[in-house]
Amino acid sequence: MADQRLPSRSENFADWYNQVVLRAELADYAPVRGCMVIRPYGWALWENIRDTLDRRFKATGHVNAAFPLFIPMSFLEREQEHVEGFSPELAVVTIGGGQELEEPLVVRPTSETIIGHMYAKWIKSYRDLPVLINLWNSVVRWEMRTKLFLRTTEFYWQEGHTAHATAEEAEAETLQMLDIYADFAEREAAVPVIRGRKSQSEKFAGAVHSYTIEAMMGDRRALQSGTSHNLGQNFAKAFEIRYLDQNNELQYCWTTSWGLSTRFIGAIIMVHGDDQGLILPPRLAPHQVVVVPIFRSEEEKSTVMETVERLAQQLGERFRVYVDRREGLTPGFKFNDWEMRGVPLRVEIGPKDVAKGSAALARRDQPGRAGKQFVDQAGLTETVASLLDEIQASLYQRALSFRQEHTHQPEDYEAFKDVVQNGWAESWWCGDAECEAAIKEETKATIRCIPLDQPGGSGKCIRCGNEADEHAVFARAY
Amino acid sequence: MADQRLPSRSENFADWYNQVVLRAELADYAPVRGCMVIRPYGWALWENIRDTLDRRFKATGHVNAAFPLFIPMSFLEREQEHVEGFSPELAVVTIGGGQELEEPLVVRPTSETIIGHMYAKWIKSYRDLPVLINLWNSVVRWEMRTKLFLRTTEFYWQEGHTAHATAEEAEAETLQMLDIYADFAEREAAVPVIRGRKSQSEKFAGAVHSYTIEAMMGDRRALQSGTSHNLGQNFAKAFEIRYLDQNNELQYCWTTSWGLSTRFIGAIIMVHGDDQGLILPPRLAPHQVVVVPIFRSEEEKSTVMETVERLAQQLGERFRVYVDRREGLTPGFKFNDWEMRGVPLRVEIGPKDVAKGSAALARRDQPGRAGKQFVDQAGLTETVASLLDEIQASLYQRALSFRQEHTHQPEDYEAFKDVVQNGWAESWWCGDAECEAAIKEETKATIRCIPLDQPGGSGKCIRCGNEADEHAVFARAY
Repeated sequence: MADQRLPSRSENFADWYNQVVLRAELADYAPVRGCMVIRPYGWALWENIRDTLDRRFKATGHVNAAFPLFIPMSFLEREQEHVEGFSPELAVVTIGGGQELEEPLVVRPTSETIIGHMYAKWIKSYRDLPVLINLWNSVVRWEMRTKLFLRTTEFYWQEGHTAHATAEEAEAETLQMLDIYADFAEREAAVPVIRGRKSQSEKFAGAVHSYTIEAMMGDRRALQSGTSHNLGQNFAKAFEIRYLDQNNELQYCWTTSWGLSTRFIGAIIMVHGDDQGLILPPRLAPHQVVVVPIFRSEEEKSTVMETVERLAQQLGERFRVYVDRREGLTPGFKFNDWEMRGVPLRVEIGPKDVAKGSAALARRDQPGRAGKQFVDQAGLTETVASLLDEIQASLYQRALSFRQEHTHQPEDYEAFKDVVQNGWAESWWCGDAECEAAIKEETKATIRCIPLDQPGGSGKCIRCGNEADEHAVFARAY
Repeated sequence: MADQRLPSRSENFADWYNQVVLRAELADYAPVRGCMVIRPYGWALWENIRDTLDRRFKATGHVNAAFPLFIPMSFLEREQEHVEGFSPELAVVTIGGGQELEEPLVVRPTSETIIGHMYAKWIKSYRDLPVLINLWNSVVRWEMRTKLFLRTTEFYWQEGHTAHATAEEAEAETLQMLDIYADFAEREAAVPVIRGRKSQSEKFAGAVHSYTIEAMMGDRRALQSGTSHNLGQNFAKAFEIRYLDQNNELQYCWTTSWGLSTRFIGAIIMVHGDDQGLILPPRLAPHQVVVVPIFRSEEEKSTVMETVERLAQQLGERFRVYVDRREGLTPGFKFNDWEMRGVPLRVEIGPKDVAKGSAALARRDQPGRAGKQFVDQAGLTETVASLLDEIQASLYQRALSFRQEHTHQPEDYEAFKDVVQNGWAESWWCGDAECEAAIKEETKATIRCIPLDQPGGSGKCIRCGNEADEHAVFARAY
């Protein structure tokens, strides 16, 4: 797999992306239109993402549960915006056990409606609130143009669904989860993000407002990488989710939902990768360290493998370590293979290293000689620990600099139209949906978000020149 | 919830079971026919089952992956026995994105066929073998009569799928996974099981032969609690899963599959529970210890809570501990509530305990005075550790004695017909499918398995009197 060159990332980003996904064996095309198989290496990455998010969810009082895959069609129809948003992309079961069903069942595109139905049954009193439930599952949206991880008919995600006694609590929850996503993206995935509000035309179907984290990919397009929705009382009213307050009066709940999906794997690939393949952030990499033994004879093999196994065991107590014991492959082939798969740090042990008590280390984020160093086997664990931290920090810094370099504050609309073709624009926006639509029509750039972090004051809308209170980030997006 | 009495377990086992599931908030009925919602308490139990199995799978070289929910109908038709077995229970998607689909998609009832398709693509050489992949997902089988956890239209499970170079390796894998299930059941869930082979009429549709672990429930019926299938070359031939061997010749692979589902939660409930509700084995319990503070005034509360929080933190370093801080509920209500939910050990702290440096402990497996003891707060962690071990061992021992007591070796068919109404029979069986069918017809008992552990020698078939080489276990089953 790794012996053919990848397409150049700078020349053909889309082709480079697909080839990296396939050759690093993250995923493969399934024999069902628009679906993917996530292969063991890709799934191990998702499991690491899941575990680190799950810890954050549980630390903030959330619990996991499981809701059915099937939702009665009539449930979706109870919330007007919701059904309009999702109708075109539904997969529908019409036959069960050999019989035509009386009411067709939708394969869940998201679970707000069935959650609403159950919460209405479970929630009786203010004592039952808040309800803070998260689901790890897959959902189905019939997509026309699909792309591995970024847009597939079935995808894996978590969906959080909470119910609260007050509007303030629901808003605080929505923002808390956005912060958790941003913290995860930046600390664990080394992906810098802008936290912001979606415009009304880009919000979730059924939400009062939606928040997002937006990241810049290696081709300077934006990727919506996680979203958190304040649903107000829309679903509470559609499903009669009510509670008796402390004065024994019936009140509607306030609900939220928030999700982050396997799409984020696409972000990791597109933010960090290079012409050699994937570069995985150490905190999420399935293998943080790969050890490659080097020998030319059976005699060399036995002395080298003894050292390799000893060092691997030692490193294994602290890191996720993989020893490449494959037979019949050259070290050079193995180096390329692990570079393709983005393992952050490679340890090479040959007969000379055994004799000298040394090891050769190669950083994936600095290919070639720059990232290579020879170190003592004594203290290897500490050396590896500090290198992995350095790689993690350096990946983040590089991605941040890249985003800053390609984020512009254009002077006027002409300059705006130009910069959004190859970067992001941060500009005043009047808040008018028609203005937003015209920009999209004229430039293919959309409002990624209205950042939470605003410059203050006011200015003139980048397109229409009207009074504007807020900055928006505009970009072409996935 | 906990203030109404449960139905008596001995008088109405089925009703008792349903009420325990609902009142302990393990699961609830979903608004979709035959589906369930697994509530946070039930899902936490499943997560513990998952984690402990997953460690065993990974320790034996397996990796996780994700395969699509949808399978083209034509895939199922490629393996004759398989499609005949599963056709009557399929859910079928016929509409996607508003259009009728050219080929209907089946919602996976199990993934052998789509696995077969992908393995054929991935496996080229003996160097690629074995492939050892496991999936954690849900599957759908359109069931007519459903029961929470035991038989639902959608259920959660893991399905392992492996491919090997030789028949011997495939058989060794099939038996290894059966042993892992048995080890999990006995050590973690405290559920004693009989490991055995399924008769041909009870095997998996498409397998050469199937192995099972069978457990005796509290009403003496059997529950198939996990299965492991040797698929021979059936799926390899149907999907052209082939590899080049060391002589460069093309060979068909040998494959296996094995699964354990949320049904196992039903086994835990039915094996250990009592008239007060659930009794959870300490190794799997979401909360191993619950701490209930007891006070009558605000002043008492503040001193009690100080001790409670200190002890809970200390215990929390080693156990899964829950502090019941709920306001406005009496201690008695809380005791009943946690008994219903089966928490293995309760720690009660009142003002006298604070003064004396003591704590009251109550074992869930010994309700009433027998399970109550007063201990020093000093050394509480060690006391709790040894009590939890004792509870775990005692639950296993009790379930084993119960099974032994209700497993019979009847002298003749008349005695056989009698004992299988209220227990298990272990008897010689001639191996004839007609004889098996007649027994089922006449007694409602089926062959649960032909135990791996055989007495040796031979005897006369319990029904027809013909020569028989093997013992079989017969029972009425879920």
